[in-house]
Amino acid sequence: MSSDLENLLNLVKSRVTPTPQDRRRLENLAKKLMARLEAQLASMGLEAEVRLEGSIAKDTWLRGDADIDIFMLIPEDVPRDRLSKDYLEAARRVVEEFKVVERFAEHPYVEAWVNPRLRVNLVPCYKVTPPNWKSATDRTPYHTEYVKARLGGKGRSEVRILKRFMKGVGVYGSDIKTGGFSGYLTELLILAYGSFVEVLKEASRWRPGVIIDLEGYYGGREREARILFENHCLIVVDPVDKSRNAASPVREEVFHWFKASASHFLEKPSLKFFYPPKPRPPTPSRLKQVLKKRGTDILFLRLKGVNAVPDILWGQLYKTEKALVRLMKAEGFNVLRSASWSDEEENSVMLFELEQAFTGEVVKHYGPPVGSKEEGRFLAKHLNSPRTVAGPYIEGGRWTVLLHRKYADVRALLREKLKDGGRNVGVASRIAASIKSRGFNLWLNGEILSFYRENRGFKAFLAQFLKGKPVWLEG
Amino acid sequence: MSSDLENLLNLVKSRVTPTPQDRRRLENLAKKLMARLEAQLASMGLEAEVRLEGSIAKDTWLRGDADIDIFMLIPEDVPRDRLSKDYLEAARRVVEEFKVVERFAEHPYVEAWVNPRLRVNLVPCYKVTPPNWKSATDRTPYHTEYVKARLGGKGRSEVRILKRFMKGVGVYGSDIKTGGFSGYLTELLILAYGSFVEVLKEASRWRPGVIIDLEGYYGGREREARILFENHCLIVVDPVDKSRNAASPVREEVFHWFKASASHFLEKPSLKFFYPPKPRPPTPSRLKQVLKKRGTDILFLRLKGVNAVPDILWGQLYKTEKALVRLMKAEGFNVLRSASWSDEEENSVMLFELEQAFTGEVVKHYGPPVGSKEEGRFLAKHLNSPRTVAGPYIEGGRWTVLLHRKYADVRALLREKLKDGGRNVGVASRIAASIKSRGFNLWLNGEILSFYRENRGFKAFLAQFLKGKPVWLEG
Repeated sequence: MSSDLENLLNLVKSRVTPTPQDRRRLENLAKKLMARLEAQLASMGLEAEVRLEGSIAKDTWLRGDADIDIFMLIPEDVPRDRLSKDYLEAARRVVEEFKVVERFAEHPYVEAWVNPRLRVNLVPCYKVTPPNWKSATDRTPYHTEYVKARLGGKGRSEVRILKRFMKGVGVYGSDIKTGGFSGYLTELLILAYGSFVEVLKEASRWRPGVIIDLEGYYGGREREARILFENHCLIVVDPVDKSRNAASPVREEVFHWFKASASHFLEKPSLKFFYPPKPRPPTPSRLKQVLKKRGTDILFLRLKGVNAVPDILWGQLYKTEKALVRLMKAEGFNVLRSASWSDEEENSVMLFELEQAFTGEVVKHYGPPVGSKEEGRFLAKHLNSPRTVAGPYIEGGRWTVLLHRKYADVRALLREKLKDGGRNVGVASRIAASIKSRGFNLWLNGEILSFYRENRGFKAFLAQFLKGKPVWLEG
Repeated sequence: MSSDLENLLNLVKSRVTPTPQDRRRLENLAKKLMARLEAQLASMGLEAEVRLEGSIAKDTWLRGDADIDIFMLIPEDVPRDRLSKDYLEAARRVVEEFKVVERFAEHPYVEAWVNPRLRVNLVPCYKVTPPNWKSATDRTPYHTEYVKARLGGKGRSEVRILKRFMKGVGVYGSDIKTGGFSGYLTELLILAYGSFVEVLKEASRWRPGVIIDLEGYYGGREREARILFENHCLIVVDPVDKSRNAASPVREEVFHWFKASASHFLEKPSLKFFYPPKPRPPTPSRLKQVLKKRGTDILFLRLKGVNAVPDILWGQLYKTEKALVRLMKAEGFNVLRSASWSDEEENSVMLFELEQAFTGEVVKHYGPPVGSKEEGRFLAKHLNSPRTVAGPYIEGGRWTVLLHRKYADVRALLREKLKDGGRNVGVASRIAASIKSRGFNLWLNGEILSFYRENRGFKAFLAQFLKGKPVWLEG
């Protein structure tokens, strides 16, 4: 390793490693909450082992960026509904002094914010013997044990550097919004390859379908793993459960972004991979000019107060975004790019960058082959129709006709298709419900200005969308 | 056959059958010219047998629409250049009182116009024994013999009705412009199926690749014929040469048009299939309105005095039309339809009906896969290019970038690509030469008006193009 690179990594390390005071403060808080939780459970007659899990238990958390994960390991014979009612109620009482959010995407748990930078998660799980998992979080205690038993002090530093890198290039997090790498996955990568730099070297050579199998469960039978984890671009066999891919949340795009950022970092190491400068959004009046001379049309679909926890919300936004792109393309609008943004509360916005918001007024429509039994109906329909511009004529052996388009203006198309919520063009359920109860806005280009002015988070997002390239590719 | 249909066909028959006077006049003229040609050849010391061929020899010509085809059958040992010089010179002298055109597409011959409706063709060929053909026209005498020996009076009437039908629906003629059915081919179809109505019944059931093999050369070995005549939609094995498809000039589109018109005629017989009413072109001011509200953009490329005989000219027009459609599509212009028109002298016009004459200003450009060896060059090229609008970013595992288009206006594109003749975008040689020496015009929509006003033939053509459906589909 060059001394430049070594110096850079030491600098990062010094920033991400918690100080003794950081540790003491967190550990004290964790202990206090655990004791409270134990007492609360006892007072309610609820049996459970309370344990610290996650990055604090494994000592792989990033300074100034920690979650306290406290688990309740519950006997297997407790019914599931008591887990989501009684146990969760106990958890709620423990953190009632803080801001509390309840998360119910796949598995119920309580999230509380001690302060705007410190989150506590109180998570119920079943205490089971592998591989008899009963709920989605039952593996966590085993993950913690596995990593604690194998990762030394050097390894923990390497994990911290890798996590910081992944945060910097935007691929850290197994939530639906990010579709990237979980903390546990970064730890497994360090265990597999030994160091941050080695992980990057390997990642820069990854191809979709790569398999990392620490425990050698599929030794010599990689085909079997590939069939089991079909369509997963990255396969990291979970050491505590060989039927699970620890990398399954990683989306293909994120996989490629990590691979690309790894190889670019190795070629030209820089602190900006770890700590990218925040984009400076243009002023509203500058934005207006930028959009004007850009040469594309950007359509903004604004939704209000979609009622869903973040993982559900983002899943629905992405699904709807895809469905609307498909709709627009099918109607002749060339969508160049699209993206979704949300403050996860009142406002969500989908962005569609189009070649043109107006197509031509005429579309070519291919009908049945000459002489087929559908011919008669096609000709009868189009011969004297007011929508017919030219034809029917024969092209490539098929009857063909030029028709007036129903929608030459993309906004007219969306207004029509979304007016009843849009379920039948593929809009996801919660979003359709929000459209039906609260309506929606369609803004084209400069019409976004007043929303832009009032939403800081959206400002930064739009600035990045317009550039459309990562910070580490710049300059 | 219904009596209505019988009456209709009798009416057509009465119109297409020559009167005794017609016959006498043509036969006298043919005899006189043949005698003159024989004397001329003798006086020049040129050996040849002079014979009447074609539809007059076979008595299958249409009243008021005859060609006199006189052939010179030349001994095999005469060198080819004497055939195209001395023998053609003899032919020229025989018809020097008429308007003479020399035709040199594939095979040299002399064409003379006795009056605007009567053409004489004087054609040299070699007198050979099959299958030792030396030139493209050597088979003709054998075709004449074959048909004369087999076609009776009834058959000759059926041929005349079929020819008139094919003329009416626009599929008659094996010239490059039409790409349709030769006279000989109509005769073979009647010999194969027996009557006009039977030919239509069979044709309405044809599928591309159909084989008609009168002499049974490929009995039980149709696969062999299909391989030999690959990509021919209609295969009619020439009875005088089993290695030749007598239907090879029939283009796929024309094949389908004939099939469709056959089935529509049988369903609803009408005189308009044989004698379609001439389209009534709109007045110039009406045309202007029609184009305005049509909703498409029609681009006209006008060429001047392309120097080529009709078969070459049309071949070059079609080739160039195809190449320019390909160019426009590759540059993002959606071409709905295209066509070519020519007066075969001073003016040729290509028409391109476009969804829009202006595309958006930005195009999406896909680059190499992430991590490939081309990645570096792609990123270097686009990262700081003034043409880059957004990106590079990753889509589907490839580097992708939004670029400013070079040409957002189709006229700017064509002006640039044609300024040097356009050979390297696929413009055919004679057309490129005409562009270089005489220039070209690009007219959009209403800009065609003054040309339209002054060109009768073009008027009718454009009227038909705008409707884009055959007369027999109307009303």
